[in-house]
Amino acid sequence: MTSHQPIMTLDALREFLDREFPQIHVGGRTYELEEIGPFSARMRMDYHEKHLRPGGTISGPAMMGLADVALYAAILAHIGPVPLAVTTNLNFNFLRKPEQQALIADCRLLKLGKRLAVGEVSIYSEGSEDIVCHATGTYSIPDRR
Amino acid sequence: MTSHQPIMTLDALREFLDREFPQIHVGGRTYELEEIGPFSARMRMDYHEKHLRPGGTISGPAMMGLADVALYAAILAHIGPVPLAVTTNLNFNFLRKPEQQALIADCRLLKLGKRLAVGEVSIYSEGSEDIVCHATGTYSIPDRR
Amino acid sequence: MTSHQPIMTLDALREFLDREFPQIHVGGRTYELEEIGPFSARMRMDYHEKHLRPGGTISGPAMMGLADVALYAAILAHIGPVPLAVTTNLNFNFLRKPEQQALIADCRLLKLGKRLAVGEVSIYSEGSEDIVCHATGTYSIPDRR
Amino acid sequence: MTSHQPIMTLDALREFLDREFPQIHVGGRTYELEEIGPFSARMRMDYHEKHLRPGGTISGPAMMGLADVALYAAILAHIGPVPLAVTTNLNFNFLRKPEQQALIADCRLLKLGKRLAVGEVSIYSEGSEDIVCHATGTYSIPDRR
Repeated sequence: MTSHQPIMTLDALREFLDREFPQIHVGGRTYELEEIGPFSARMRMDYHEKHLRPGGTISGPAMMGLADVALYAAILAHIGPVPLAVTTNLNFNFLRKPEQQALIADCRLLKLGKRLAVGEVSIYSEGSEDIVCHATGTYSIPDRR
Repeated sequence: MTSHQPIMTLDALREFLDREFPQIHVGGRTYELEEIGPFSARMRMDYHEKHLRPGGTISGPAMMGLADVALYAAILAHIGPVPLAVTTNLNFNFLRKPEQQALIADCRLLKLGKRLAVGEVSIYSEGSEDIVCHATGTYSIPDRR
Repeated sequence: MTSHQPIMTLDALREFLDREFPQIHVGGRTYELEEIGPFSARMRMDYHEKHLRPGGTISGPAMMGLADVALYAAILAHIGPVPLAVTTNLNFNFLRKPEQQALIADCRLLKLGKRLAVGEVSIYSEGSEDIVCHATGTYSIPDRR
Repeated sequence: MTSHQPIMTLDALREFLDREFPQIHVGGRTYELEEIGPFSARMRMDYHEKHLRPGGTISGPAMMGLADVALYAAILAHIGPVPLAVTTNLNFNFLRKPEQQALIADCRLLKLGKRLAVGEVSIYSEGSEDIVCHATGTYSIPDRR
């Protein structure tokens, strides 16, 4: 019934994120939206000093921030450039210590309603198949007229 | 590294569930474990009076119970018949009203550790592709010696 | 700013629940709304056969159903008799095995917005101070005009 | 039965956090453990450039990091200096936009088991009574011999 096709191109969404969310690039550009598809999106986060704790482990907040931005991008890809969507719930399961590698966040939208969008993200260390962190998130979408 | 193959057969797991969890069949046998596979399992819950609210809608607790039993079965399939695994966390996103149909719970294990197992479930109305409820769950596994 | 006072009386809310949610009494009346207060409510669930698993333990779905109904009542007490509020997210932490006793669900509302209400519940075995199950829930509130 | 008294002093816990978790002070010291009590702890996070997004709003990851550190400290206060406790689950409800103020994280432990500790946190803008973010978290505690 509903089409699950994104309505923004990858380039348009990248530009939108750069313009509206410059904060994700503070201290070094490390996020790259790699792919968008039907009810899906993939984002990459470089292994970079600003995400690390002493010892070289990627910090929890860095993973949580990645999950949030990636889900946000997945939703925008399908509803268009609405800068006012707001995160209302995030649930994280931390499964393994990440490698000293870039992280890949694979998102799948579970619902795209008029008021709420819900998605899930699996985060992997690049080159590995084991999920290091899984998250689900809910976003409130402003009225569109 | 780790094999993701189940270590119980479908028949052995069905028998184990019948013996150890007779409660799921109280008031009528409605749960059927349909399939187990690598880090996955699928359970079916009939559309049956005992799961309904007036009006014919499947109740929230019925869906929550299905998610829990299905995840539990998915874990047992991979660790063997350990009746003492305990649910520690369940997170549910309710996405749509279910149809007046059987529900199918598709489970995927995200982690099978020594102490904790984590999985996710997508619940569909039979014959539909829209997820009505998505859940993640964590189970504490007793020490095995 | 916002008043946190309930806008329904305990009696009016009890009658509303009985009329609109008769399902919670199927198989025996076991839920009793005991108290409503500023951003709070307390519901009791009798220790009753219909909530038990073989062995006498209160089932997970019975606790989850209690948490949902109690939060729902807490919200209605503060927004008035709106039968169409819908549960969108529930997160449960199961902390201990409940006693063979009635359960008490103590709710606190965390937010009462125009579109979303969020609350938490602590469930105790009657007469005990240890929480057996803690839940948070989000409810979508229909447009009111 | 169980005592709910902390077993570390506020000073000992502050020193331990400084030594074992220097990362939380990278870019400026903004976290202050203000209080520990029976099954509780309170942490303050200054309103500081490093936690902000353009426009001056405190970022989601900054709030999520605060919740995690505060819960972690609350647990350590009660189990002693065990640097290897690991976050396994975090659930966040984002309720309001925080003020341009310091944040206060009020933690309450819900369970302190041998293997798992569970707690909740309410985060407020300093000087306000409205909760901006509520979280629950589960931590895996290593075997202690």
